[in-house]
Amino acid sequence: MTANEKLTALRAAMKNAGVDAYIIPSADPHQSEYVADHWKIREWASGFTGSAGYLSVDAHHAGLWTDSRYTAQAEHELTGTDWRVHAQNVQGAPEHIQALAESLKPGSVVGCDGRLFSTDSVRAMKKAFDPKDIRLVTNVDLASSIWKDRPAPPPHPVFEHPDWYAGRSRAEKLSLVRQSMQKNAENWRLITTLDDIAWTLNLRGADVESNPTFIAYLVVGDQKSYLFIDDQKVPEEIKIALRHDGVHIKPYNEIDPFLHDLNENQTIGVDPDTLSRHLELAIREASVFNSPTPTQRLKACKNETELRHIRYAMVKDGVALTRAFRWIEQTLAQRTLTEYEIAAMLAQYRSQQADYMGESFNAIVSYKKNGGVIHYRPTPENSAIVEKNDILLIDSGGQYIDGTTDITRTIALGEPTAEQKLHFTLVLKGMIALSMLKFPVGTRGVQMDAVARIPLWEHGLNYPHGTGHGVGYFLNVHEPPQGFTPSWTQRGKTVMEAGMLTSNEPGFYKDGEYGIRIENLIVAVPDEKYPDFLRFDTVTLFPIDQKMTDVSLLDAKEKNWLNQYHQTVRRELAPHLNPEERDWLAQACKEIG
Amino acid sequence: MTANEKLTALRAAMKNAGVDAYIIPSADPHQSEYVADHWKIREWASGFTGSAGYLSVDAHHAGLWTDSRYTAQAEHELTGTDWRVHAQNVQGAPEHIQALAESLKPGSVVGCDGRLFSTDSVRAMKKAFDPKDIRLVTNVDLASSIWKDRPAPPPHPVFEHPDWYAGRSRAEKLSLVRQSMQKNAENWRLITTLDDIAWTLNLRGADVESNPTFIAYLVVGDQKSYLFIDDQKVPEEIKIALRHDGVHIKPYNEIDPFLHDLNENQTIGVDPDTLSRHLELAIREASVFNSPTPTQRLKACKNETELRHIRYAMVKDGVALTRAFRWIEQTLAQRTLTEYEIAAMLAQYRSQQADYMGESFNAIVSYKKNGGVIHYRPTPENSAIVEKNDILLIDSGGQYIDGTTDITRTIALGEPTAEQKLHFTLVLKGMIALSMLKFPVGTRGVQMDAVARIPLWEHGLNYPHGTGHGVGYFLNVHEPPQGFTPSWTQRGKTVMEAGMLTSNEPGFYKDGEYGIRIENLIVAVPDEKYPDFLRFDTVTLFPIDQKMTDVSLLDAKEKNWLNQYHQTVRRELAPHLNPEERDWLAQACKEIG
Repeated sequence: MTANEKLTALRAAMKNAGVDAYIIPSADPHQSEYVADHWKIREWASGFTGSAGYLSVDAHHAGLWTDSRYTAQAEHELTGTDWRVHAQNVQGAPEHIQALAESLKPGSVVGCDGRLFSTDSVRAMKKAFDPKDIRLVTNVDLASSIWKDRPAPPPHPVFEHPDWYAGRSRAEKLSLVRQSMQKNAENWRLITTLDDIAWTLNLRGADVESNPTFIAYLVVGDQKSYLFIDDQKVPEEIKIALRHDGVHIKPYNEIDPFLHDLNENQTIGVDPDTLSRHLELAIREASVFNSPTPTQRLKACKNETELRHIRYAMVKDGVALTRAFRWIEQTLAQRTLTEYEIAAMLAQYRSQQADYMGESFNAIVSYKKNGGVIHYRPTPENSAIVEKNDILLIDSGGQYIDGTTDITRTIALGEPTAEQKLHFTLVLKGMIALSMLKFPVGTRGVQMDAVARIPLWEHGLNYPHGTGHGVGYFLNVHEPPQGFTPSWTQRGKTVMEAGMLTSNEPGFYKDGEYGIRIENLIVAVPDEKYPDFLRFDTVTLFPIDQKMTDVSLLDAKEKNWLNQYHQTVRRELAPHLNPEERDWLAQACKEIG
Repeated sequence: MTANEKLTALRAAMKNAGVDAYIIPSADPHQSEYVADHWKIREWASGFTGSAGYLSVDAHHAGLWTDSRYTAQAEHELTGTDWRVHAQNVQGAPEHIQALAESLKPGSVVGCDGRLFSTDSVRAMKKAFDPKDIRLVTNVDLASSIWKDRPAPPPHPVFEHPDWYAGRSRAEKLSLVRQSMQKNAENWRLITTLDDIAWTLNLRGADVESNPTFIAYLVVGDQKSYLFIDDQKVPEEIKIALRHDGVHIKPYNEIDPFLHDLNENQTIGVDPDTLSRHLELAIREASVFNSPTPTQRLKACKNETELRHIRYAMVKDGVALTRAFRWIEQTLAQRTLTEYEIAAMLAQYRSQQADYMGESFNAIVSYKKNGGVIHYRPTPENSAIVEKNDILLIDSGGQYIDGTTDITRTIALGEPTAEQKLHFTLVLKGMIALSMLKFPVGTRGVQMDAVARIPLWEHGLNYPHGTGHGVGYFLNVHEPPQGFTPSWTQRGKTVMEAGMLTSNEPGFYKDGEYGIRIENLIVAVPDEKYPDFLRFDTVTLFPIDQKMTDVSLLDAKEKNWLNQYHQTVRRELAPHLNPEERDWLAQACKEIG
């Protein structure tokens, strides 16, 4: 079926279902950032492969709403179809809803599949539609009927993430959830986000690309708990272990009747930010208590055991990158490479490390002007040839059983221009400033974001993304709630607490020419000297390109930070390298004066 | 009447009115920060003279809720009365409402005078009371009956603030209001905040201490406008001028019937953040459009004429301060002073300048440990003796027809300790960092606040107040909406725009020992070099104490800023000084190496 044939089928199904317009998001029933193929409805229907966007269809118009990261790609992928690209002014904003509210006639009916929309987002849609007398019905699943060759839900088995990695047993974690439930007088707590389920149960899976999660719902009770999951995915010994901790398996689809049957004397806690509208409606008689999933904050603050393992995963990642970056250098002396080849080689070097489980996201390897496209990713079909000149940006990460990594380095392949060195060094100064920051307990991400921007601001420059996101522990590379961002979003308003692992990744992008980003992961720790203050420990271990650094722009403190960092990198990685690799690293980590 | 006798009378009046509890705020019907004596009900009833606090009375308990700035003072002032002091955890937070909601029985009735509460605050109170089945009635004015010797509303005449100061005529300003009204499809816009009324009409008054405003309401119509004000306060020639611009005078109290009589075909725009509950209920049939008062942003962005005058007012203020600070130095060589005497002398030196209209707030002159009490103010009865040692903090400001000033300097009267110099220099570094900041268009106060704190944070230090507030132009010294603050308040979330005049006032307070604050006013201006960036111009003109500055802690950029600043101060002030004063200033402004 072509995109236009699918659109015709979709409109026919809409007519059948009695809806005048239909909305398709990029979501699964768990509000995951990355979704399994089974839920790639938006991609299947339109052909647009970017990670964010909404389809909105009525009788006259078929629109894709996506943000500036993806509009060029969308225009390209939707050429020759009846889909029209609309640029969102604000990433993820419901601008398609505004457009529908303005164009539809009073009395119209808008449909969507309530499993794919959070209760909060449905409330926002109703607020836009109500004054226009437009009705929203949220039980309209059109994909199931028109998507004939739809992939099955992912079938991968779950496996234990043992206590010696997790630092806290499943029983302890369940008891922490119950403490929060008691405070809210909840009999049950419904957890629908996949990383929270995996974290709580010390289990992992492989149902979602790059995310070691598995498709399930978890309901924690004051006594018994229930994991709603495809029974075949759970090995017998895990079932026994779960039962030992009071967690019983039920089929995935039985979450609906389970919620339905809770009686009016029961209170169930849910997170309206991620609970689907479908499950909200499945709760008939029970009282609902709305509050954030309690595991979100618990999971974000890494414990001592987790931090110890993360540091070791960083050593492995640094060793793999040393080999990969040395290979790039040596190979370019002989021949050209492609961006895709480099991405593949990065994954291969990482795969030689112990307990490697895959990439934490598809690597961004962007050469020259591709570096200026922030979310550029090379593919086998579309990948630039890399030569021994200009600059290369590499943003990649690995999943290890003992940690998730995410690192960006920008390197000169030939002699960088003075302008490239200036821009790189400004980005570096910002990255160092945030790395060195001490801050009082209670400080939020929105207050700290500018620290990494000021050196660029002084030159009238900036970057159009946040400065950092939370990172999971053998879990999702983008993990809420904390981060560094200029906006009053969850990332901006979350207080930075001890144990939180966050990326520190300022950048600069010169459209049509090149991109620069430097990214380390940093963990917030109590300051040794000042009791009510925190500071950051940098845990990523890999040298920062000295060819790109204009040392004359660094002050004494910045030079000292850089020298100390390179000393640490060398001390931690060298024992795992052969003599030639060690020499390469020593050169990359040499002291600056 | 003693405080306890007033409390007995209040409880009797409550019984009469059928309310179980009664709330008295520190407010007037215009949600002013400073209120005229007529509305100092909270102070009259309790005896507490601080600027912020709520009284909450029921049959068993009489409580004053105020924040940490004032709790010690309140304990002192309420000693021997039945009033009990409660410390608010968050300044201005409705913690007294929570306490009432928890202590009152279901079915209870809480009363308040709806003229003194904004619609937003009434909504918040109802939200707290409703679930407890407590009813809130907002038409209960008990003060009028029990406060026998209540001062009359202030009677001061209004006067013109001519166009050559204002830079925009009254007609232009009314037309800007009408542009905003058209966008919102409003037939009328109700303006209740006194500084917005004064700004819009290019009029000033003297009804509120330190604020050159007058008690009135303004309703702008698409054709005609109405100023509700005590007729006797408006000189005949101003009446004629107003009428010429389509503004007609009506008695102050006729605002109620005016709003009442608007019919259902009319839409009136109001600002729910400042509109009183009383006036909200006075609008019966007309449609209400809620949005911020349009003049707030217009008034905040000073025009070229205003900025030119502000710069001249700063020269006058600097000249007055040069004389005052030199007088302090010379007098202390002979004898001791008191804090209050210094405050009075500051006002006297200012009063010798052209077009001086009074203090912009009661000066803070705090010596030694008094400096550690952030909102300390000397009074004739309570004022420390100042000797020729330790450090003195002076935060003061003047109202001139051509500008409002607000400046803080901290000076060494003897030889400062190394610790005092360290703390002073850290505060100075933060103040300079914010002064030098360039930032992209769209940046909010909450993103910039930390810039002034980082030097202190590096030493595990901080200050418990925001870094800056908006300042009016011959208007209120605290002018919304912008500012620098760590919190997501109006000040934090307002985007800093060109023309905004804001204080830059980091500090450090050592409890029981001393306080340090350095405050300049800065105006946001377009950066000459980078089109999408703004920077700040410092407009305050007075030297920063070099005896307090540890030059070895300043880097080259900071030294350069300080030298340039002192050069400017000297260049601008010297022409207005006599030779001895000029020598004193030259010494205070000498270049550092």
